[in-house]
Amino acid sequence: MNAATVNHQWRIAAFPQGEVRDGDLRWSESPVPEISENQILVRNIYLSLDPTNRLWASGEETYLPPLKLGDVMRGSTLGVVEKTRHPRFREGDVVMGAQGWQVYAVSDGSDVSRLPRDNRLPLKAYMGVIGSIGLTAYFGLLDVGRPKAGETVLISAAAGAVGSLVGQIAKIQGCRVVGIAGSEEKCRWIVDTLGFDAAINYRSGDLAQAISRSCPSGVDVYFDNVGGDILDAAMGALNLYGRIVVCGLISQYNAASPQHTFSNLTHFLIKRVRMEAFIVLDYLARAHEAYAPLTQWLQEGRIQYRVDIMKGLENAPAALAKLFDGSNQGKQLLLISDEP
Amino acid sequence: MNAATVNHQWRIAAFPQGEVRDGDLRWSESPVPEISENQILVRNIYLSLDPTNRLWASGEETYLPPLKLGDVMRGSTLGVVEKTRHPRFREGDVVMGAQGWQVYAVSDGSDVSRLPRDNRLPLKAYMGVIGSIGLTAYFGLLDVGRPKAGETVLISAAAGAVGSLVGQIAKIQGCRVVGIAGSEEKCRWIVDTLGFDAAINYRSGDLAQAISRSCPSGVDVYFDNVGGDILDAAMGALNLYGRIVVCGLISQYNAASPQHTFSNLTHFLIKRVRMEAFIVLDYLARAHEAYAPLTQWLQEGRIQYRVDIMKGLENAPAALAKLFDGSNQGKQLLLISDEP
Repeated sequence: MNAATVNHQWRIAAFPQGEVRDGDLRWSESPVPEISENQILVRNIYLSLDPTNRLWASGEETYLPPLKLGDVMRGSTLGVVEKTRHPRFREGDVVMGAQGWQVYAVSDGSDVSRLPRDNRLPLKAYMGVIGSIGLTAYFGLLDVGRPKAGETVLISAAAGAVGSLVGQIAKIQGCRVVGIAGSEEKCRWIVDTLGFDAAINYRSGDLAQAISRSCPSGVDVYFDNVGGDILDAAMGALNLYGRIVVCGLISQYNAASPQHTFSNLTHFLIKRVRMEAFIVLDYLARAHEAYAPLTQWLQEGRIQYRVDIMKGLENAPAALAKLFDGSNQGKQLLLISDEP
Repeated sequence: MNAATVNHQWRIAAFPQGEVRDGDLRWSESPVPEISENQILVRNIYLSLDPTNRLWASGEETYLPPLKLGDVMRGSTLGVVEKTRHPRFREGDVVMGAQGWQVYAVSDGSDVSRLPRDNRLPLKAYMGVIGSIGLTAYFGLLDVGRPKAGETVLISAAAGAVGSLVGQIAKIQGCRVVGIAGSEEKCRWIVDTLGFDAAINYRSGDLAQAISRSCPSGVDVYFDNVGGDILDAAMGALNLYGRIVVCGLISQYNAASPQHTFSNLTHFLIKRVRMEAFIVLDYLARAHEAYAPLTQWLQEGRIQYRVDIMKGLENAPAALAKLFDGSNQGKQLLLISDEP
């Protein structure tokens, strides 16, 4: 089989215990599938790597149906229509969906959305700001966290794809914004380039003290991507009627028995805190509310993003691992095949 | 000094470490105070004992100003006006307030509320259903938990003053109601007398399994009075968009370093749970919204309560301790002096 007739996939070989290891995912090869009437053949260009992928690989019931052994690993993708026997799609259309960790996928069109044909934004923007990352940041902050101008917003994984966007949206809302990140470089980036008011490197020194210093008026909204000790420390700094937005819990996704120990729950009670989780899927029907302002802010240069692109589907497990050791610099993507 | 001229108080001698011990509170004697123009002398009849008293004794900032060493211990009271030089009060008026752990107190009227003079309910009702207990149960369940008819409501400390009322209000709303309590007698009482659908004795067997068995459709609202392991187990049973009402955390109030360990926080995220704390003080302005239906339900026999009355101010520390070993049977009161 030559390149044009061979498809590759990563399939679930064993449900990972702890971090994903060699052998949990199996590299497989198959012919490029044929399409039938009312189907399209999509060649994936970008694969999005997100912390929640670790939950998807677990084989357990999550907010999506569990994967079975042998299934192609689930993943959000952007691709191009290479062949079409579907009236709604033309060759060359760019589509977003969750076509998984594979080069070619067949779709009946129900599980993908087509980008506007007159679109002027770079394709990778749709894997970030104008995609599920943007919806996550926008609705998580504004609909769940509900910050008011002048309030202090604290964000964990603040140099990550979601966190960096949350902070910039909070600045646009007139908030004081403090980010927690895992390196001096990330801290500098969110302050110097993105305009955060302060940054905390959680790897250096006492976190609770650092939060007190950086948030002299306390914390009104804590946007959490990590859970664990950082969540506990942030909880202790919350003001009256403070809010915790639970967006992700990456610190515990690899744990065999995830445990979060809270020493500040009495403070939670005394301050009448609200802690609320959300999943971006709940907001897909309202996506247009977010895309209009996000697109405008992007075009005006009021929000910035960076993507960390690794190449080659064979490197998908390595790209995922970067999220968990924090070595990614911005939104982690994998370039599966060339842009049209 | 004879009885009519002597006042007694319990004062803070040392901030308790762990459970309240002999020596933390000091029994003191002083003359019955004289009153000035625009003051009343209140003789306390009932003292309410509540888990939150332990927080008040801590000397730390809570939702109320911290007590200082030497202060009279704070406590909710119901008393009778024995002397008045205040135009709004007559001798014999019954007043509610927080006059503390003492027999006599002087007030300028701003920190007490007068019961209606034509009141027909027994006085002890105002230390329970038609008082802060009633407001706590009513607003905590309906305003924070927001149960819908047909949903399952799970309650910890369900035979306690607040929990037993929450369950009965939830039944009136058409919910399935399951209570967690600490003895077989309490479990029988909430099912046989109060009409709960099921009860779980947390001292016998695996709690998570018991919750699954008693809540076959999962839990929609968990009303928490205890925190700790029971909160964690309940969290794991929550349905999509489940709600946790954080009313109290009695399991950790005596702990020197309170810790709550959660193994079910990923479930919290996946199910988009909302966990929200409240304090009854936030609802005092809306008390009339609750008192009208509560009074009606009480008069119709649709809600029942029981009080556990210990006698004599000297026994106040012992009455408080009963809340923490679970030996109280319903709302714990202390009879300080005779009803008029």
